[in-house]
Amino acid sequence: MSAAYVTRREHFSAAHRLHNPAWDEGKNERVFDKCNNAAGHGHNYILDVTVAGQIDPDTGYVIDVKLLSRIIHERVLDKVDHKHLNVDVDFMRGLNPTVENIAVGIWNELQPHIPAGKLYRIVLHETEKNSVEYMGE
Amino acid sequence: MSAAYVTRREHFSAAHRLHNPAWDEGKNERVFDKCNNAAGHGHNYILDVTVAGQIDPDTGYVIDVKLLSRIIHERVLDKVDHKHLNVDVDFMRGLNPTVENIAVGIWNELQPHIPAGKLYRIVLHETEKNSVEYMGE
Amino acid sequence: MSAAYVTRREHFSAAHRLHNPAWDEGKNERVFDKCNNAAGHGHNYILDVTVAGQIDPDTGYVIDVKLLSRIIHERVLDKVDHKHLNVDVDFMRGLNPTVENIAVGIWNELQPHIPAGKLYRIVLHETEKNSVEYMGE
Amino acid sequence: MSAAYVTRREHFSAAHRLHNPAWDEGKNERVFDKCNNAAGHGHNYILDVTVAGQIDPDTGYVIDVKLLSRIIHERVLDKVDHKHLNVDVDFMRGLNPTVENIAVGIWNELQPHIPAGKLYRIVLHETEKNSVEYMGE
Amino acid sequence: MSAAYVTRREHFSAAHRLHNPAWDEGKNERVFDKCNNAAGHGHNYILDVTVAGQIDPDTGYVIDVKLLSRIIHERVLDKVDHKHLNVDVDFMRGLNPTVENIAVGIWNELQPHIPAGKLYRIVLHETEKNSVEYMGE
Amino acid sequence: MSAAYVTRREHFSAAHRLHNPAWDEGKNERVFDKCNNAAGHGHNYILDVTVAGQIDPDTGYVIDVKLLSRIIHERVLDKVDHKHLNVDVDFMRGLNPTVENIAVGIWNELQPHIPAGKLYRIVLHETEKNSVEYMGE
Repeated sequence: MSAAYVTRREHFSAAHRLHNPAWDEGKNERVFDKCNNAAGHGHNYILDVTVAGQIDPDTGYVIDVKLLSRIIHERVLDKVDHKHLNVDVDFMRGLNPTVENIAVGIWNELQPHIPAGKLYRIVLHETEKNSVEYMGE
Repeated sequence: MSAAYVTRREHFSAAHRLHNPAWDEGKNERVFDKCNNAAGHGHNYILDVTVAGQIDPDTGYVIDVKLLSRIIHERVLDKVDHKHLNVDVDFMRGLNPTVENIAVGIWNELQPHIPAGKLYRIVLHETEKNSVEYMGE
Repeated sequence: MSAAYVTRREHFSAAHRLHNPAWDEGKNERVFDKCNNAAGHGHNYILDVTVAGQIDPDTGYVIDVKLLSRIIHERVLDKVDHKHLNVDVDFMRGLNPTVENIAVGIWNELQPHIPAGKLYRIVLHETEKNSVEYMGE
Repeated sequence: MSAAYVTRREHFSAAHRLHNPAWDEGKNERVFDKCNNAAGHGHNYILDVTVAGQIDPDTGYVIDVKLLSRIIHERVLDKVDHKHLNVDVDFMRGLNPTVENIAVGIWNELQPHIPAGKLYRIVLHETEKNSVEYMGE
Repeated sequence: MSAAYVTRREHFSAAHRLHNPAWDEGKNERVFDKCNNAAGHGHNYILDVTVAGQIDPDTGYVIDVKLLSRIIHERVLDKVDHKHLNVDVDFMRGLNPTVENIAVGIWNELQPHIPAGKLYRIVLHETEKNSVEYMGE
Repeated sequence: MSAAYVTRREHFSAAHRLHNPAWDEGKNERVFDKCNNAAGHGHNYILDVTVAGQIDPDTGYVIDVKLLSRIIHERVLDKVDHKHLNVDVDFMRGLNPTVENIAVGIWNELQPHIPAGKLYRIVLHETEKNSVEYMGE
């Protein structure tokens, strides 16, 4: 048997605002610059979820990507797609929605629910230029 | 002399909410669905601006794309990038920020300020799946 | 009111074989080369469907892209996605499934069912290198 | 001397059908769904082959990518491009052509023939959404 | 019979320098800025060549894209790929190698040699942000 | 606290020529082939710079990507963008500008100047087909 890493790519569109409520307005503006705009802005996020495991000799799958896609939809996309990350998303409550913090939040939502193999890596792209990789540690 | 069509691609990230204030909540939800989320959502927009004209024999340019980029920044990107299109943008005031209406708004902002050739086409991509083309008529 | 061109991008994966039954094997091989492989080969097709029309002042839409997507699924994708184009697809019966002929077939499937604006253009990408544009004439 | 990882990207187009001959039709349909279509379907596969090694001080290369490309063509692409993976490909005989199994098959074809450095990683993209990474263990 | 527009995409990598020998150094620097760097710089150009014509009922082709690719290689790519456009390319002699002028040069090289349909459009991408479209008039 | 890997993507366009001055012309041509063209050729390089570190609980950042971008511009892009890598770039002096050697050079320029976290990985894409990954060892 061989181990392989299977990746499913999904998309979501969301608004957010970078802001630390412990700081005054001036510091928020200096640190977060245009990402601090009061009414928020938004992105088309690209989410790559990688599951590592043995290839099942009966199916040839590490994990059925149709099933993986359904789990990502139920656990993550239904909560974040076409939402405002500072307002509408329970698992981001009290967190500044930087791409780092969103990736950690998504990992925590998905990790207990992977039914075959184990969650290995999340890559979250906020724009064509900015992305973050998180491996759960 | 030959005519050519020069395109400059730019990017901006913005939040928006699709909503018609003349309708009640139920109708807004039925028509605009998840795009009607009260707190908004957002996108990485890709904007392609095409200028048509003769190639200048001295420069080999229809228009200097560095100049075209500067005009797009001053007239459009500085107003929409990292903004909420329903709240922060003067030229979208009173308009539902569909990709169609944003494209028309951008055309109207740019058209009087093209210094060489003439504005020929705008393509605005809202997601990898949805885009609109507008040619000013 | 302003006219605009709205494009929806969809994807499908299909097998096909280029073959003219009126020709002998030798001529089929000479003309279609590796695309004539008896058991077929396949592609991830990218389909761009463009609808032209006036922007509705109540919605800001030329056509609701959610509706356009549903029509493309019902009329085209449900028939071609994960299918063999020479064997499984009624509207390709008796036609050599070149990218040109598939585009014409898709146009004919969609054209009577566009509920707002009118079908303006189809672009069908067979690979990153080969595509065809068809405008119904 | 420094170690680096050099990647060559290649493309191939192939048909396949997911099917386990030890199962009846009903189970094949339930498990593999539309990927079980009897006449097959197909994809444009993207293949990334990574070789790890020291940078040769005379050439500045870990491996000449022109040579790496030639090896990938001779050992893999000539066998799979414009073919049906269930029918035409010797190294997939008796294997269900999931993206996982194809990646392992390609690794085994390439691994003995890398002339400089050593084969480090294969990434095989079946669609824009589904891919697999294999590192030979 | 139906008319369609078939596009073949090809790639080449070349060096160039924007410079007008009729101007002094200061003006060249002011107008062409960093594109005027004396030793040149370079790009991965993407070339889209579109041929318009009737679909041949025997082949299902407007033009065989394998043949179109061969013509683009012989007439254009063999002359410009891995070359310096100011120094090595006969059809650019005496022309400032802006993306506009290169597109016109490529059109003139290809136009007499299209064996089926007729050359309709060239799109030449110099970077992800800058491109030009030329239709021969 | 959680560790994450933040990546910033940047672009530059440069000319280069592969050449080993210790070899005669014949050997240079045999080894480097069309990359040895005397006047050089060029590419649009894509540079991915990854910084690893703990997520700062006050900002939600591993590193501010605006700051990371500024460092990449000052230390690398200002030296290589729109330049000839064999002629204009101090940190490539005496090195054959293969994608491997450029990646090592960029690493050495950036590594001492990363103000938060530490430089983890550089990926440098020379074309859509050829890239190199370097992790500093």
